Amino acid sequence: MNQLGIVKRNIERADAGVVEHLGKFGVATVHEAQGRTGLLKPYMRPIYPGAAVSGTAVTVLLHPGDNWMMHVAAEQIRPGDIVVAAITAECTDGYFGDLLATSFMARGARALIIDAGVRDVKILKEMGFPVWSKAISAKGTIKATLGSVNIPVVCAGALVNPGDVIVADDDGVVVVPASDAARVAQAAQKREDLEGEKREKLAAGVLGLDMYDMRDPLAAAGLKYLD
Amino acid sequence: MNQLGIVKRNIERADAGVVEHLGKFGVATVHEAQGRTGLLKPYMRPIYPGAAVSGTAVTVLLHPGDNWMMHVAAEQIRPGDIVVAAITAECTDGYFGDLLATSFMARGARALIIDAGVRDVKILKEMGFPVWSKAISAKGTIKATLGSVNIPVVCAGALVNPGDVIVADDDGVVVVPASDAARVAQAAQKREDLEGEKREKLAAGVLGLDMYDMRDPLAAAGLKYLD
Amino acid sequence: MNQLGIVKRNIERADAGVVEHLGKFGVATVHEAQGRTGLLKPYMRPIYPGAAVSGTAVTVLLHPGDNWMMHVAAEQIRPGDIVVAAITAECTDGYFGDLLATSFMARGARALIIDAGVRDVKILKEMGFPVWSKAISAKGTIKATLGSVNIPVVCAGALVNPGDVIVADDDGVVVVPASDAARVAQAAQKREDLEGEKREKLAAGVLGLDMYDMRDPLAAAGLKYLD
Amino acid sequence: MNQLGIVKRNIERADAGVVEHLGKFGVATVHEAQGRTGLLKPYMRPIYPGAAVSGTAVTVLLHPGDNWMMHVAAEQIRPGDIVVAAITAECTDGYFGDLLATSFMARGARALIIDAGVRDVKILKEMGFPVWSKAISAKGTIKATLGSVNIPVVCAGALVNPGDVIVADDDGVVVVPASDAARVAQAAQKREDLEGEKREKLAAGVLGLDMYDMRDPLAAAGLKYLD
Amino acid sequence: MNQLGIVKRNIERADAGVVEHLGKFGVATVHEAQGRTGLLKPYMRPIYPGAAVSGTAVTVLLHPGDNWMMHVAAEQIRPGDIVVAAITAECTDGYFGDLLATSFMARGARALIIDAGVRDVKILKEMGFPVWSKAISAKGTIKATLGSVNIPVVCAGALVNPGDVIVADDDGVVVVPASDAARVAQAAQKREDLEGEKREKLAAGVLGLDMYDMRDPLAAAGLKYLD
Amino acid sequence: MNQLGIVKRNIERADAGVVEHLGKFGVATVHEAQGRTGLLKPYMRPIYPGAAVSGTAVTVLLHPGDNWMMHVAAEQIRPGDIVVAAITAECTDGYFGDLLATSFMARGARALIIDAGVRDVKILKEMGFPVWSKAISAKGTIKATLGSVNIPVVCAGALVNPGDVIVADDDGVVVVPASDAARVAQAAQKREDLEGEKREKLAAGVLGLDMYDMRDPLAAAGLKYLD
Repeated sequence: MNQLGIVKRNIERADAGVVEHLGKFGVATVHEAQGRTGLLKPYMRPIYPGAAVSGTAVTVLLHPGDNWMMHVAAEQIRPGDIVVAAITAECTDGYFGDLLATSFMARGARALIIDAGVRDVKILKEMGFPVWSKAISAKGTIKATLGSVNIPVVCAGALVNPGDVIVADDDGVVVVPASDAARVAQAAQKREDLEGEKREKLAAGVLGLDMYDMRDPLAAAGLKYLD
Repeated sequence: MNQLGIVKRNIERADAGVVEHLGKFGVATVHEAQGRTGLLKPYMRPIYPGAAVSGTAVTVLLHPGDNWMMHVAAEQIRPGDIVVAAITAECTDGYFGDLLATSFMARGARALIIDAGVRDVKILKEMGFPVWSKAISAKGTIKATLGSVNIPVVCAGALVNPGDVIVADDDGVVVVPASDAARVAQAAQKREDLEGEKREKLAAGVLGLDMYDMRDPLAAAGLKYLD
Repeated sequence: MNQLGIVKRNIERADAGVVEHLGKFGVATVHEAQGRTGLLKPYMRPIYPGAAVSGTAVTVLLHPGDNWMMHVAAEQIRPGDIVVAAITAECTDGYFGDLLATSFMARGARALIIDAGVRDVKILKEMGFPVWSKAISAKGTIKATLGSVNIPVVCAGALVNPGDVIVADDDGVVVVPASDAARVAQAAQKREDLEGEKREKLAAGVLGLDMYDMRDPLAAAGLKYLD
Repeated sequence: MNQLGIVKRNIERADAGVVEHLGKFGVATVHEAQGRTGLLKPYMRPIYPGAAVSGTAVTVLLHPGDNWMMHVAAEQIRPGDIVVAAITAECTDGYFGDLLATSFMARGARALIIDAGVRDVKILKEMGFPVWSKAISAKGTIKATLGSVNIPVVCAGALVNPGDVIVADDDGVVVVPASDAARVAQAAQKREDLEGEKREKLAAGVLGLDMYDMRDPLAAAGLKYLD
Repeated sequence: MNQLGIVKRNIERADAGVVEHLGKFGVATVHEAQGRTGLLKPYMRPIYPGAAVSGTAVTVLLHPGDNWMMHVAAEQIRPGDIVVAAITAECTDGYFGDLLATSFMARGARALIIDAGVRDVKILKEMGFPVWSKAISAKGTIKATLGSVNIPVVCAGALVNPGDVIVADDDGVVVVPASDAARVAQAAQKREDLEGEKREKLAAGVLGLDMYDMRDPLAAAGLKYLD
Repeated sequence: MNQLGIVKRNIERADAGVVEHLGKFGVATVHEAQGRTGLLKPYMRPIYPGAAVSGTAVTVLLHPGDNWMMHVAAEQIRPGDIVVAAITAECTDGYFGDLLATSFMARGARALIIDAGVRDVKILKEMGFPVWSKAISAKGTIKATLGSVNIPVVCAGALVNPGDVIVADDDGVVVVPASDAARVAQAAQKREDLEGEKREKLAAGVLGLDMYDMRDPLAAAGLKYLD
């Protein structure tokens, strides 16, 4: 899968309406609706709290300490995209700062997801360009080795294909395959519809034990109450 | 100690007045007053800054990736309690989100301390329900295996008995045995009374070297000043 | 290098004007201007976001769980200094809280950089005393063993000599040798002067590929575009 | 629980016969027989492979970088004991080397379990004194602060009471409460008796799917086979 | 990609001859020959030193703390296979011990690659069944939730498709896509042919600087020799 | 200190006799004799157990994922040297394998100390070329960016100057400044002379409590014995 030195120009992006729809639910709901898969590792954290985005993946595979392909990726960004950057080995260097963010924003990117480090985080926050990353580091990178753009990549433990839907918020990042996005959005909607009612009941003091009919299965499993 | 499948209904909670009193000092002072013990590991961090609570422990022992007992624990919560959740193996999954928080709040819980992950952290912040956890993760959990409620647990390296006092703030989390709480509160008060005076002196430029009479012991230990 | 039991009183501090100048650029720019060296490890994080300082290093070498020398260091602080604390082994204990911060501020210190833990972080934030540390921990320390003040130390992987320039912000911490500070400040200024122009171009949609003339070298390296 | 400055001389040790019996099963079997509890965290590793021991716990609580109480613990060792050392904060220093091992062996200790570092590991291996530890480190420790001996401690996430049974091998370390040891040994024996037969069947090519009658529950859970 | 509850029975395995051929080169050479891709993260370590294998991947996706699908996977093993186990979230539990190893060996499996923990490691070594894992842990698992067998999985950061070639030795683990295996084997052979000659020269004292003609490029890059 | 692009040819090496002498004591003793300083972080582990060396440091500073300067360093090796490799940012890539080891051995190097990864570890063991490293990884490196040889470097948290003495064994790695080596060797000898006698006493059952006269200071510190 990791063919190096390749840029794929035409990728099939998930439907824009579905992308927006998925973005409304947040990461936890989308992950559940998808069958509890697609999450990136929990070490991926937002560089500032409160951001929440959805978009279509432009993927980039980079080498440790080398951000050359970030500039190649910039040209492939279309409005509504989220750049998903994977590294061929573990690295915390700062691949991305305010200049690249300026360029990405000018191209219409909504966010960066990177399994490495970023810098200029104070300015990125002021610019309103959200990033989910493994690290914050001022360590500079070089431009010496080819990677690839818009090939399938493994980012923070999850397979991301170009055009897939990315949803990210304070809970982390989830990927939904483009081909499955509509189904997952429906399932997420269904899940969310049910949650409002549940929340009201719980707020009124009803116990999950009763609302979910757990008392019998718990007793069957052998749960014992002692005084 | 880890008897599984047990819920203890009647636990002896630390005195409510002492719990409030301890809450006023903060984690660092309580930890010192107690003889530098009782701290949970420093990887336990608040999901949002600024929260500070004290309360009595309702404990719950859970299995990796399984939050069934959280619902059982909810029923045992009384106003002023803090739920302390331990896992039988290391796990970062998201055991707790806005629905459980709604239920816990309705029961009067003040916070959750969990040696694992939580999700819906943005909503939890909006709800004002503080959590100290090892991780933030959207990863969902199942409901398949019994654990226990209100047995002694080891949470983030500290032994917590049901009814013990929990104090948590931006510095972390400390546990005070219920039987020792009054004594620790007194010691903390004494410590705090002394600190105001010290703070004034230090702010006025007096050195700790002089205020604590350290110059002689330092010289005796062999400290040498070079120009 | 790690002579123990020594306090050097007279150290040569970097020029105050150069220190101010370097502080304006931020960590990422200074690190680049210096030839991509001098960064402390990225695990060094600010205890609250948004702080940005520069100053001259007063160094202190401490033992695990022992903050005795912090009081010795306090006396050596002059206005404009930043205390840089290294530990002889890995430790996350809370070496520093609001009392020491009060003393350090009274002496004119601008910040603390410590390869260990600190506590009272909420109060430190209210006091406006910034700290970059490896951990936040309420764990108290003892006063039993001599270390040294104003000797060269290795802090979070970087060699810091007393009097060196420290620049710290949300991106991390960088050290600039006092003897090299003027040259680095000039290089940083030059770098910054060029960045404004670049930022404008990128914001206007010009690609880095074109602005940096990368297309030919990328093709020469074998980059292939597929449709 | 962490009373400091205390040495308990008379502790109730688990029955020697039961200790030997438990030692025959190994850590995995004892952990299962006990209901999947009592394991120390998996970061606890033997300093050399192949060692396997069981014994009764003499516990010691130490401060970071301070091994004074190890000497106090030595006097409390009786033949067949295993010293279990907990630290009040995270530390990797080398608390224990060949001299202490000589003393511990002379007293009849069978092993050391320590949630920190040890040194002289080559000599320890030659001496045949096994250690399970968090780290190997030559960093020396001081003798300045009191801890306690034979109080309940939390070691690597598990509560250990003096006199409890410790079983350790290449899979890690497990603790069995003294009062529960006979029951657990019986359950372990039963488990082991069944395993021989299972092993033969599996070696003969019988599948666990059939031996454990899993096919129906898997189908009921929805498992689908595709060609 | 992570469809749950599915077992694919017929998978296309890489050619057996190519698998043997690749196994002769070792992980480092195969990884280089493949263009420096396909490596699993370096935290994947052999449970005993000296093992070296190659085989075709039977993949299995498991839930945290649940090894049910291991038994389902066993049935899909054919002689020459290597089981590659991925988990839907981070987990160090012991999914695999001597009984499952007996079953896997009876089916003809050559090894297990698992992004989690294993146990009974002493017996596994005696049996000669090699495992590369993230952890060693005696923690038992349950059998409650469906995963899948022979779907594409991400294991320790690398995408593995059923039938792909796995090569593992003391340097780690690498995956080669089945469709690319013959080409990679050829490239590896070429690489190896050249190494023998290089080794002789270097052993005779020829410097890499001269053998690889590095002196000019180093000088062009600005390298300066000082006396 | 981190001047890039420099190779210092003439360095002052510590006296060969002193280097041999220090090598006899092992890391723990040398570290103590030096006043408990100079240890590299405990994550530096030998790639195979049992090796023990001493030598003079040839230092090399490398960039993440780039081993170009290793070849430059090879030329500066003289018999009895140990190469000490530092990286400008955290990296686990495999910078060193059997070919470079062949070259280093041909030049007379005794070992490699590297704050990153190495590969071909099975062959390195067969060759008898010991390495202490942070990681084992087959990940290849490029040759694109200049570092330096024989400048002061920070390796795994310790400052190493070219020509310093390196001692390494199963306990880790320690550095002794060349100028201090004779004094440290004497102190180590003295320490070792005393240890033999102590070992005999302890083996005979004398307690450290008595041998070190600890009973009075312990009582003075408040230690209490309970029955």
